[in-house]
Amino acid sequence: MAYSWLKVPNDSDFTIVNVPFGVFSVPGKSPRAATILGDTVLDLSLLEEAGLFDDIMPIANIFCRPDLNTFIEQPKAVWSNVRQRVIRLLVEPCEDPRLKENSALKRASFHHIAEVKMHLPIHVGDYTDFYSSREHATNVGTMFRGKDDALQPNWLHLPVGYHGRASTVYVSPHNVHRPYGQLQKDANDPSQGSEYGPCQLMDFELEMAAVVGGAANTRPMTIEQAKSRIFGFLLMNDWSARDIQKWEYVPLGPFTSKNFATTVSPWIVTADALEAFAAPTSAGLQDNPTPLPYLQDPEYGSYDVVMTVAIQSARQSQPNVVCTSNFKNLYWNSAQQLAHHTVTGCSMKAGDLLGSGTISGSTETSFGSMLELSWKGSREVKVGEEKRKFLHDGDVVVLKGHCVMSRHTFGCRDRST
Amino acid sequence: MAYSWLKVPNDSDFTIVNVPFGVFSVPGKSPRAATILGDTVLDLSLLEEAGLFDDIMPIANIFCRPDLNTFIEQPKAVWSNVRQRVIRLLVEPCEDPRLKENSALKRASFHHIAEVKMHLPIHVGDYTDFYSSREHATNVGTMFRGKDDALQPNWLHLPVGYHGRASTVYVSPHNVHRPYGQLQKDANDPSQGSEYGPCQLMDFELEMAAVVGGAANTRPMTIEQAKSRIFGFLLMNDWSARDIQKWEYVPLGPFTSKNFATTVSPWIVTADALEAFAAPTSAGLQDNPTPLPYLQDPEYGSYDVVMTVAIQSARQSQPNVVCTSNFKNLYWNSAQQLAHHTVTGCSMKAGDLLGSGTISGSTETSFGSMLELSWKGSREVKVGEEKRKFLHDGDVVVLKGHCVMSRHTFGCRDRST
Repeated sequence: MAYSWLKVPNDSDFTIVNVPFGVFSVPGKSPRAATILGDTVLDLSLLEEAGLFDDIMPIANIFCRPDLNTFIEQPKAVWSNVRQRVIRLLVEPCEDPRLKENSALKRASFHHIAEVKMHLPIHVGDYTDFYSSREHATNVGTMFRGKDDALQPNWLHLPVGYHGRASTVYVSPHNVHRPYGQLQKDANDPSQGSEYGPCQLMDFELEMAAVVGGAANTRPMTIEQAKSRIFGFLLMNDWSARDIQKWEYVPLGPFTSKNFATTVSPWIVTADALEAFAAPTSAGLQDNPTPLPYLQDPEYGSYDVVMTVAIQSARQSQPNVVCTSNFKNLYWNSAQQLAHHTVTGCSMKAGDLLGSGTISGSTETSFGSMLELSWKGSREVKVGEEKRKFLHDGDVVVLKGHCVMSRHTFGCRDRST
Repeated sequence: MAYSWLKVPNDSDFTIVNVPFGVFSVPGKSPRAATILGDTVLDLSLLEEAGLFDDIMPIANIFCRPDLNTFIEQPKAVWSNVRQRVIRLLVEPCEDPRLKENSALKRASFHHIAEVKMHLPIHVGDYTDFYSSREHATNVGTMFRGKDDALQPNWLHLPVGYHGRASTVYVSPHNVHRPYGQLQKDANDPSQGSEYGPCQLMDFELEMAAVVGGAANTRPMTIEQAKSRIFGFLLMNDWSARDIQKWEYVPLGPFTSKNFATTVSPWIVTADALEAFAAPTSAGLQDNPTPLPYLQDPEYGSYDVVMTVAIQSARQSQPNVVCTSNFKNLYWNSAQQLAHHTVTGCSMKAGDLLGSGTISGSTETSFGSMLELSWKGSREVKVGEEKRKFLHDGDVVVLKGHCVMSRHTFGCRDRST
């Protein structure tokens, strides 16, 4: 276990083996890149200005920009070198004393997390959402089409996905307003048409979003190429209006039921940091059809990240966990999603987001949405002393992810209003 | 009829009552804004630099940028004022002689269309594609689900739409490569799984794309607000791999079958220019259910734009028209699409694209895709002396639109390779 000369609280999510990337601002200054250690946000633009990355950075002034896109557009080696450099600067015994011994630089570049404002770390060019948890797809399919027809015939052959709305990806914490829209008048008879009103079945979806990095492609990516193009991961809440979704989604998929808000955590945990927690996907553990060659990943490579969802109502003083799942529960991994996305030659740019799809496990307490936890509203979900079928106004939804050994944690905390 | 002191060929698509906006470059110079009259491209950045828009433009240096986004982010009055100013500068008798009498400015700002390179005129933040032709939806529904179940229950109540891929919106002309992907092994039995290979059913879709302008919204837009937010229109070809689409599209809609290329015309014809050709949508002409109040447009406002698709094979010397349709054939108009898009509060930004959906009419020669023209490959479509069911490699697909009185024409011309 490595330690830093900088004080890190025992229960901190951000240890020296994490080194996530984000964008922050302080009053009077424009947003810029940062990392975090314990409670200390480090202004990477000042470290860059002081020349600490000069020998490993191909272009200048990369960290004073309002998003990380230019940084993550660089090759993977650059990301890795910067992360390693930050670790060498901060580790005890110190391997590169240029920060530790520069009091003025420390004073200028260190901020307590409580004193900064965090921003969306990337400009999202395109956002794609997948549907890669077999358990989630089976649960939803069972509810809407019955058990025998739950999984569509294509599901085990490709990572089903669709394009999402990029303009409404917000950084957490964010106030998510209950949307209005069209609701089916008679639940059992669509021929009765629709009515206008507020969504009655407001829901979250527990997801992980891969952040695409590297230079834009013009050709399909192999699995190996795709792996080197994944910069890191954000926790993501794919807010969903289930009743609007039910009425609108056939035949072109969800549209206004999900276009009002998608929230992501402010810190991108790098793929490098997660390597120590590599674990196979659920596809690697089961007797499943072999995918086509362009989708084969011999490692079925995912990560063991425990993920939870907690809800705190307006009357409660702390969040109550309603779901505990794991990133490795997914059937298709991010590299497979990216290889499939580009099989046609589709161009992917730095900052594109790939939502994993709702990450549900096989037990009833590991389902990643209220739709599944309440089984389409047929049972109550315990939220502390309260009960829920779907979200109420004022509910705060807290998503967390951590790897057990090192507590890399990253989260969303948003209010449904 | 108004004429210009600048020579405009008799058969030109770009008369003085058109004044479309685009982005062009000449060797050694960066892309910048332009309009076109006859065969003459006018460099708007030089007209701006000469002060010709000073009294009507709220911010400086708006036309020297590589896209029109900042210009169309301004209120509608600014777009209209600039168009009117250009007309006053160019009309004969001249109403504002500052260009006509400035030989140096004319020399510097005028270019023959053959000497410039046209660029994608906007940075597309998000691209949404609708499905708003009743005839197209009925045709596709009939082919895939039978006549009795052709239109989904929601179709007459809302403009069905879905998010598209923004990174692969290209300006025409563009070489579109036949994509590879997953194809269903047995056409009649999806349980047999899929195989990897090149798309066999390559198709076009004849569409019009509305370009959203104005400042980003945070609340739903009324129909009236939506009307004032539509800057203009591009012709759009929504390239489609029908066999990939068939296998992948249930339940989340088309994904890789359409993510490889969407092509648009280089010139944006303004909503102002089309006003003279206002015509009701097909919804306004039929005995249809009244939409919910937030979707009601008393004018059912569309435009009478004749739209054609022509194909020219590698062996042919000219394009052969295979489809003649009309923008007014649509059931839902762009303002209704925009109001529905934002009913949840979804934020729309300047440069967002709203594809109309394939614009099919009621006759067999007015169908806007090969899928419909060949009725799912069951009949041959005449292309000059050749025949087609779907596109062949080397086929050039030419989309054109014109308003009969003034010949506002704008088109796409792309090669399928």
